[in-house]
Amino acid sequence: MTSPGLHALYRQLKRLGEVTVVAPDTERSAVGHAITTLMPLRVKEFRRGRELMGYAIDGTPADCVKIGVGAICKDRPIDLVVSGINLGPNTATSVIYSGTVSAATEARILGIPSMAVSLDTFRDPDWSYAASLARRIAAQVLKRGLPPKVLLNVNVPNLPAAEVKGVQVTRQGDSAYEERYDIRSDPRGVPYYWAAGSYRMSDVEDGTDALALDRGYVSVTPVSFDLTAYEELPKIASWFA
Amino acid sequence: MTSPGLHALYRQLKRLGEVTVVAPDTERSAVGHAITTLMPLRVKEFRRGRELMGYAIDGTPADCVKIGVGAICKDRPIDLVVSGINLGPNTATSVIYSGTVSAATEARILGIPSMAVSLDTFRDPDWSYAASLARRIAAQVLKRGLPPKVLLNVNVPNLPAAEVKGVQVTRQGDSAYEERYDIRSDPRGVPYYWAAGSYRMSDVEDGTDALALDRGYVSVTPVSFDLTAYEELPKIASWFA
Repeated sequence: MTSPGLHALYRQLKRLGEVTVVAPDTERSAVGHAITTLMPLRVKEFRRGRELMGYAIDGTPADCVKIGVGAICKDRPIDLVVSGINLGPNTATSVIYSGTVSAATEARILGIPSMAVSLDTFRDPDWSYAASLARRIAAQVLKRGLPPKVLLNVNVPNLPAAEVKGVQVTRQGDSAYEERYDIRSDPRGVPYYWAAGSYRMSDVEDGTDALALDRGYVSVTPVSFDLTAYEELPKIASWFA
Repeated sequence: MTSPGLHALYRQLKRLGEVTVVAPDTERSAVGHAITTLMPLRVKEFRRGRELMGYAIDGTPADCVKIGVGAICKDRPIDLVVSGINLGPNTATSVIYSGTVSAATEARILGIPSMAVSLDTFRDPDWSYAASLARRIAAQVLKRGLPPKVLLNVNVPNLPAAEVKGVQVTRQGDSAYEERYDIRSDPRGVPYYWAAGSYRMSDVEDGTDALALDRGYVSVTPVSFDLTAYEELPKIASWFA
């Protein structure tokens, strides 16, 4: 709720219409599409000066969308859900782990057009271009709509507007984390494991999100939450014939 | 690690070869593809009598696969990862929230053929048919392999073998949760929200996982972790032309 990327996005989206922010009360990284069902959730008003900006939730990004749509904005129509702006790219295999993308996915499951926005840096972020681009793409989605079950995953280079090369519509790349665990000993001599892998930018094929971003383009990927591998249905069916 | 579905599966898979169990130390429901990066993980040996059955992790299902592949079995080739048997179906929109499916997805991201197995009940489970079917499908996967980026999501009716109607290869259905939140007051008069929605079996079209299961068939869905909505690429590209 205190994320500068969120505030930059809020200021831009206010130019399009009424905006209600519903966001986790602390950072939630790599929570994927986790939802909270066994525990209750708390909802706290969040103000900027006198203005009611929105609500902070002690849950995951997907929880925020669920509770925003199902409770907070229950009696108001919602035209669009925009998730972000995330600090760090959500491209290639990261899309699977991303709480930012999952929040947008949750909105689309609920029937609301949605998009996720991430900035391609972990340090010294410049939100200005990403936020204004997010507004322009949001305006497009409001005007044109989105196909059923499809949302947009937008990744923006951390560059001044003049240095961005353009927008590429991309597919999800194949880059992944290099798996590695540090094994250490705690103060009582008991071992613990700590994920120590790093992101490997292995995409070399044109048309992938990670490569487009790496080359200085905005990457826009239409993402579906129907995970069926349709082209494999006949082959797998033949196993059981 | 104490889940009877896991133990039933373990006994059956032992008939195919060497099996190492790596499982969360407690139940993790609806964690989606959450992974743990900010905190270390603990790994505890788990024994049945004298036999070392495997390892219990204080993480998510996807963590278990990451640490199993990246650390515990680091120097051994892994032919197959089987996740489950989950108590409760993972069909339709539930696939998105499922820790069981995410564990299998994680394995496939790491290049290992994988499958998730879930039983279609929340009470009075009969694991016997599901476990032996999982072994038979696992044997098929070992023999035939799986296409890149594709895993199998298997859902089994909670019926005796004689009453199961067969196997259907299916697509992910459209059923979802009915969104609803109870708003209650805590002992100090502060409101809290609790997810109270229920699963709505709305799939009526032939060929979906939820409907096949409902009709007494085993459902096998080939699932991909490439979320790109390929058929929408030209349309979205035209927005930015």
